[in-house]
Amino acid sequence: MALAYAALATVTNQPGILFRLTKVLADYSANITYVDIIPHTDRDAEIYLEFSTESEIAPVTADLEHVAGVTRVEITPSFSKIYGKRIVIMGGGAQVGQVALGAISEADRHNIRGERISVDTIPLVGEEALASAVRAVVRLPRVRLLVLAGSIMGGDISRAVEEIRQKGMYVISLNMAGSVPDVADLVVSDPVQAGVMAVMAIADTAKFDIVRQQKRRY
Amino acid sequence: MALAYAALATVTNQPGILFRLTKVLADYSANITYVDIIPHTDRDAEIYLEFSTESEIAPVTADLEHVAGVTRVEITPSFSKIYGKRIVIMGGGAQVGQVALGAISEADRHNIRGERISVDTIPLVGEEALASAVRAVVRLPRVRLLVLAGSIMGGDISRAVEEIRQKGMYVISLNMAGSVPDVADLVVSDPVQAGVMAVMAIADTAKFDIVRQQKRRY
Repeated sequence: MALAYAALATVTNQPGILFRLTKVLADYSANITYVDIIPHTDRDAEIYLEFSTESEIAPVTADLEHVAGVTRVEITPSFSKIYGKRIVIMGGGAQVGQVALGAISEADRHNIRGERISVDTIPLVGEEALASAVRAVVRLPRVRLLVLAGSIMGGDISRAVEEIRQKGMYVISLNMAGSVPDVADLVVSDPVQAGVMAVMAIADTAKFDIVRQQKRRY
Repeated sequence: MALAYAALATVTNQPGILFRLTKVLADYSANITYVDIIPHTDRDAEIYLEFSTESEIAPVTADLEHVAGVTRVEITPSFSKIYGKRIVIMGGGAQVGQVALGAISEADRHNIRGERISVDTIPLVGEEALASAVRAVVRLPRVRLLVLAGSIMGGDISRAVEEIRQKGMYVISLNMAGSVPDVADLVVSDPVQAGVMAVMAIADTAKFDIVRQQKRRY
């Protein structure tokens, strides 16, 4: 049976090093599930890898340590265990703050019972900037749900919402002017309640099913 | 001169594919700065790469498209342009919510002037869970500053704070019981003000220098 591991390699920052590290993992038929390259201004860069393999971990670690440019390899706990699922809240600062307040309080209640839910926010205005940020959310790791919090959103932001919903992302919108509420999975008037519902929707410890709630307005 | 690019490859989810993609980039002496593997339950996985190279981008894209298991390659805007720098706030839900409120309002003001600052939170309690999350924050991409928001934190959390400060992370602590305030860069009593100061400390549009403020208490 394949087991999951996480490894942190300290490396000299040179082209080709990720290629040489992933070659070792490919040689062990390891399936890489997560990668982060962590640059540092004052010391060597680090590369963090999560992978699963049927091989023993000791020879994999040893081979990773022998890659040219690698000074150290350390087996560490995985991110998904530490930070868990993510909700992202985007839009105007006033509303994003209130949605975050609701989401953080509710996530706290679930995390106490063993969940791991993070609440991430980006205060951002402007149709073009917001549409780009909405489209990019499906490329962020571990994000399950997006809340759009503002007073007016439409145009290309609505097209971006339709695109990411087709890719399986859930979207909650505040009740606001513009066409975004028409294309969201769920529309909520009170921002604190929107944050609470966002967490309930993705928590395994909650019973609220956003899919059954589709196109409802509160 | 090396130029920065971002590419999104749609791939069949098989061991070795990241190795074959990074081999192409190594062949062009490209320096990879960011990688994300995005699994999907209902369709092919995607691999997102940011890199810089002195080569023309067209032949690189073509070679990436010819890798076995790659069905599509798209050049996209980079994450650092869209989401920018990150602040992470950890601790008890009540305090994390208030710090987030201050940080989101202040980030909104800077983002309007061209900054890109995200505010991420994880409501989490317990010495072991918090110490792990603190240690892992230096492995998250684009994080510049951590705020610890609670009523009592010490023990292994304080050791974790000392470790990440040695690695160059800035840490703001609320004024609270336990030893964490003694090891932080800055201690602030009001959670909303702590959030505002956290954003000021990392914004290029602000003049506040947290390093000059080290070990001050407000």
